[in-house]
Amino acid sequence: MTDHLFNPKQLKQQFEHELYESVIPFWERFSPDAAYGGYFNCLDFDGSVYDSRKHVWLQGRQAWMFSKLYRTIEQKQEWLNLAQSGIDFLLDNAYNSENGRVYFEMARDGKPIYLQRKIFSECFFIMALAEFSRATGEEKYMTIAKEELERVWEWTKDISKIGRPVLEGQSEMNSLAIPMILLNLIEEVAGDDDVETYTDEIDQCIKLMLKHVHEDKKLVLENVGPDGEYMANSYDGRMLVPGHAIEAGWFLQHWALRLKRDELSKTAANIIRWSFDKGWDEKFGGLFYFLDSKGYSPTQLEWNKKLWWPHTEALYGLLQNVTLFDEKEDLLRFNKLRNYTFTHFPDAEHGEWFGYLNRDGSVSQRFKGGPYKGCFHVPRALYLCNQWIEEYY
Amino acid sequence: MTDHLFNPKQLKQQFEHELYESVIPFWERFSPDAAYGGYFNCLDFDGSVYDSRKHVWLQGRQAWMFSKLYRTIEQKQEWLNLAQSGIDFLLDNAYNSENGRVYFEMARDGKPIYLQRKIFSECFFIMALAEFSRATGEEKYMTIAKEELERVWEWTKDISKIGRPVLEGQSEMNSLAIPMILLNLIEEVAGDDDVETYTDEIDQCIKLMLKHVHEDKKLVLENVGPDGEYMANSYDGRMLVPGHAIEAGWFLQHWALRLKRDELSKTAANIIRWSFDKGWDEKFGGLFYFLDSKGYSPTQLEWNKKLWWPHTEALYGLLQNVTLFDEKEDLLRFNKLRNYTFTHFPDAEHGEWFGYLNRDGSVSQRFKGGPYKGCFHVPRALYLCNQWIEEYY
Repeated sequence: MTDHLFNPKQLKQQFEHELYESVIPFWERFSPDAAYGGYFNCLDFDGSVYDSRKHVWLQGRQAWMFSKLYRTIEQKQEWLNLAQSGIDFLLDNAYNSENGRVYFEMARDGKPIYLQRKIFSECFFIMALAEFSRATGEEKYMTIAKEELERVWEWTKDISKIGRPVLEGQSEMNSLAIPMILLNLIEEVAGDDDVETYTDEIDQCIKLMLKHVHEDKKLVLENVGPDGEYMANSYDGRMLVPGHAIEAGWFLQHWALRLKRDELSKTAANIIRWSFDKGWDEKFGGLFYFLDSKGYSPTQLEWNKKLWWPHTEALYGLLQNVTLFDEKEDLLRFNKLRNYTFTHFPDAEHGEWFGYLNRDGSVSQRFKGGPYKGCFHVPRALYLCNQWIEEYY
Repeated sequence: MTDHLFNPKQLKQQFEHELYESVIPFWERFSPDAAYGGYFNCLDFDGSVYDSRKHVWLQGRQAWMFSKLYRTIEQKQEWLNLAQSGIDFLLDNAYNSENGRVYFEMARDGKPIYLQRKIFSECFFIMALAEFSRATGEEKYMTIAKEELERVWEWTKDISKIGRPVLEGQSEMNSLAIPMILLNLIEEVAGDDDVETYTDEIDQCIKLMLKHVHEDKKLVLENVGPDGEYMANSYDGRMLVPGHAIEAGWFLQHWALRLKRDELSKTAANIIRWSFDKGWDEKFGGLFYFLDSKGYSPTQLEWNKKLWWPHTEALYGLLQNVTLFDEKEDLLRFNKLRNYTFTHFPDAEHGEWFGYLNRDGSVSQRFKGGPYKGCFHVPRALYLCNQWIEEYY
């Protein structure tokens, strides 16, 4: 590969600059809530708080990110303090130790606003505790994380246990979101030394995820029947979420490398390729949010917006592909994606990245943090890309 | 007024043409489900079914529409049959007579898929039953409608009764959606002869709705505190939904005229004016879906899409204003809106209207029916405009 097409050192410089000069400082400066702990996550373009409520996904994810940076990059006391503040806030306010449920949304002071009949708040809570335990060496956090993971595992087998009614008209459909988040959680909880404990679960997650991959059609479907059937008559059966599939791809690649499973590695790379190719907007560039695999209009009104996170996930996923496989197309994809991403999302003036663009690439939402965007996808992808380059180049 | 600016006869011709040559025939032709009853409501641009599931809001609304047409326009047997088919389907499948709950979504055969912890499925069920009762003269449907309205009324006072947890971090906030739909339901249920029964309720609804109107700022807020306070520190407190406010405006105008309340009539007209002026996109034309009253970005990703229904509601609301008040600005608004609406939404080739445009006016979703669009806002507005013109010109 010629240097101007792929220069890992230069890439790392760019990623590190974004991560440590723009993204992390933004959250360090604007998110801490000195009065109540935890983080403001509704931050406008310039870091000002436009709503003081706190969304649990983002509290957990930010605590995870700062724990990770503390443990693996530099033992900065500020980073540990920030992580601690989120962990304490979550344990004190979001977590119900009686039944294991974790709220979705809280008022600034921690009083609960909303409890979803879903498992994702719990997932990001587990992720945060596991990494914080590893960062501090305090086992008690890992104990809660593991207990909670066990509960969530059970709930995914029977969602009525957390109050979501199972009704007879519902088609039996499996969502990619569930096994992929579980697989990622196991990676976070198991770390380097506890993989044996989860051998069965890892295998189950991988098997479930692969049911979504329809090789013959080069499709990675968000929802499939119990045996992986393509439910082509319904809009959720046809649904494609390219960013999600790409994220699933790099989760799988981690395990393929760890378990030394070559076939799985090739499949993971294909998941990323196919989803990228399907998702790419030839007219304006960037990845669509939702698509319909038969070409109908997706029912999601925001289908054609360009969100930051499919792009950050693809950055890391395609970097894996470029390194692991000798396919010229991967490099073309990577450079196309990287070019779009870095010319559209970062905000050099105020730091962090914009999250939501219109189809044509103009900014749709000017805020840097909101109910679903916080200190997570941008820094995680930049961090992972840097770690990857360090390991492989 | 000069004729070329406002020609009621010509308008009526245009509206009637759309209604009876394009919109109604589309639903007559493509929506009936001969096998299971009720209506396919997920219809692509050309009327083909892209998903056979049935959304209850739209089943109820279509049954209402065809009942109304049958009773007030022409006693066509096909219209009555179509209405009957929806009513039977709802009573047999959507409605739980034990507890009064009505499902949100059903499979084609009527098996339940989803039950919301909200009251809107119930509302459109009531609306359908009331009008169908009036169309057929069969009292039994009105009896259910009235019982159900009483239940819904109680639930709106304490939403925990339908399983939505009330948590202590939730700010006490009233939503415009609740009193406005109740007021409209009372109009539908009471008809011409039963208004006395609901005097108190009508008054309560109007009072609650007026709390959302902040005259000093010319704002109609979607959510306010218990005494109408502007909750300017939170994104839901700042939220504007211009189409919704405009719809509330014409609901109120109906009652203002009926109750001969001049002040209320002026307020209703102002609600429509202010919401239209705030909501209008000066750059591309059309009404935004969501706005933030302090100029922050709305958290709804679809905020800048142009949806059909704010435009249809504004068509009728502004027509009321033009007739009732001698304000040149109202006519300018009406003509601007009408011009945008008729050049962007109708589909002369396949019938019915597109529902979802991008900010720039290009089609975002090509389907004519979906989870929230069916045989309702377009025909209702055209119908109401025609009735209005007939009455006033």
